[in-house]
Amino acid sequence: MSKTGLTEREIIGIFKRRFDSGPKLPLGFDDDVAAFPMSQGRLVVLKTDMLVGSTDVPPGMTLRQAARKSVVSTVSDFAAKGVQPRGLLVSLGLPPPVRLSSVKEIALGLKGGASEYGCRILGGDTSETDDFVIDCIGFGFAESGGILRRDGARLGDVVAVTGEFGKTSAGLRILFGNKKPWPRRFSKLVYSVLHPVARLQTGLQLARSGLVSSSIDSSDGLAWSLQEIARLSDVNIVLEEIPVAQEVKDFAKENGLVSEELALFGGEEYELVLTIKKDRFVSLRRKIPSLRRIGNVESGPGDVIARFGGKPRKVEPRGYEHFT
Amino acid sequence: MSKTGLTEREIIGIFKRRFDSGPKLPLGFDDDVAAFPMSQGRLVVLKTDMLVGSTDVPPGMTLRQAARKSVVSTVSDFAAKGVQPRGLLVSLGLPPPVRLSSVKEIALGLKGGASEYGCRILGGDTSETDDFVIDCIGFGFAESGGILRRDGARLGDVVAVTGEFGKTSAGLRILFGNKKPWPRRFSKLVYSVLHPVARLQTGLQLARSGLVSSSIDSSDGLAWSLQEIARLSDVNIVLEEIPVAQEVKDFAKENGLVSEELALFGGEEYELVLTIKKDRFVSLRRKIPSLRRIGNVESGPGDVIARFGGKPRKVEPRGYEHFT
Repeated sequence: MSKTGLTEREIIGIFKRRFDSGPKLPLGFDDDVAAFPMSQGRLVVLKTDMLVGSTDVPPGMTLRQAARKSVVSTVSDFAAKGVQPRGLLVSLGLPPPVRLSSVKEIALGLKGGASEYGCRILGGDTSETDDFVIDCIGFGFAESGGILRRDGARLGDVVAVTGEFGKTSAGLRILFGNKKPWPRRFSKLVYSVLHPVARLQTGLQLARSGLVSSSIDSSDGLAWSLQEIARLSDVNIVLEEIPVAQEVKDFAKENGLVSEELALFGGEEYELVLTIKKDRFVSLRRKIPSLRRIGNVESGPGDVIARFGGKPRKVEPRGYEHFT
Repeated sequence: MSKTGLTEREIIGIFKRRFDSGPKLPLGFDDDVAAFPMSQGRLVVLKTDMLVGSTDVPPGMTLRQAARKSVVSTVSDFAAKGVQPRGLLVSLGLPPPVRLSSVKEIALGLKGGASEYGCRILGGDTSETDDFVIDCIGFGFAESGGILRRDGARLGDVVAVTGEFGKTSAGLRILFGNKKPWPRRFSKLVYSVLHPVARLQTGLQLARSGLVSSSIDSSDGLAWSLQEIARLSDVNIVLEEIPVAQEVKDFAKENGLVSEELALFGGEEYELVLTIKKDRFVSLRRKIPSLRRIGNVESGPGDVIARFGGKPRKVEPRGYEHFT
């Protein structure tokens, strides 16, 4: 517990201890989504994700982009589990006075996001708040055993990701910085923040392959995601490289930053982080070319170890977290 | 549209127009819950309800009571539809610093509410906000056609409710007033606000009876609920009495208020408002003694008419609403 108050992980820990009792559920309280048995081996899969104006909407992001982002953030958790979201509910908290133009922008963003990912907005709730809040709730259906979990990594598996990292870290620094307009060569970095993309089709394809032993999205940062798989699967993850986007390397160099740090400790980057059966990785990558091997699963107490550029060292289990 | 900004109904109207397209869903966008087809004639039923500290938590309400209230509010919509909620997800927005004691209180309130209504908390999300926010999301399962709707009232039906009204209106006036401590004889009024109860068992029993043509909860006030049934069913509702609790009559008299107004235009009172086949009402009331007849369904353009104490007059379609 920090001196000033609890961190997000500490709060979640308290709820987990209080609520995670009773008959065992298909997925742990720690996983990206919740799942509940429906009938005949089928599950309903649910996720809620709250976007808050003051912490999740950087300067330069429009209401429409923020509303779309709230959908992307929820859909990304379904992507990581390999489950198609079927519908969304949206609880909105809006500071008065609420203008027609704002409501239209929010509606456009939500509807745009929903149709990108083949789901439909079914309802919601509207309240008066001091701060702009969008709680986006998604649901879908899955077969028992058909959900990619966080806790299934096995010794010898390959650790892989679906893209490069660090773009949103760098983009957020640009948006929160004072240099405006930002250099055009960094537009991709800014765009990655304003228009994030959930890897839904890739996640569905990965789930169908049957070759993925564990999966998580990287919305709390690459280091944190690796840490979660290692902790919940009770294995070590050994990193052999960090896929950093070229623009991130350029940005880091220009600003005296370490690009690997931007890639490891960012957040709001919606790639998938996976473990895959070693002898099937090459054939799977033929079907999903965005897959990139970054390391291995080894035995150990749940650590993430960097084994490149010098001697092996532990990667701190830190990531994007509220209340810090 | 008001000069200062949109009202809650106007905002919902805009979303409804934008989102309510595509294949017809089992329930309208206007109903208490959303429903989506699962398989073999079964539906998943979903509801999200956002409680906000500054508008939904009166002075004198503890965090534990507020957390429980957020559950009651969501469960009440399931009660009105005759559907058992099976699980809950909770998105929390908390202003930092977050204390251990606050988190424990919230957890106790949520867990208490969930176990009162036989459902389980499966997961959620935690964010940093300026204002205390609890978004409580419920889900359950129903047979197609097994959900009590808002739009099914038929000519000749009896209009009935499950209890007396006005207690929360009066209780909120006491809590927001300056007289402290409040007179002990009004404790029931205050308690109705701090410890609301959802009529889940009654709602389930009503749904099983097969005799209810329409149903809604009274969380936005009795007048508003009647208005919604009248509007969506395309009928008039004629009120012949308003069931006002005796304590409300006493409170109104002492404070120079009209008790029927407190009963009609209150809110956060979680009774059920129903229409029932006329010739079966008496037998149904034998099984559910809390049922009380308050009027009839007649033909008309969707108005609510008071026909007691003087000449018939239209009841204003006003109720509890955010942004006003």
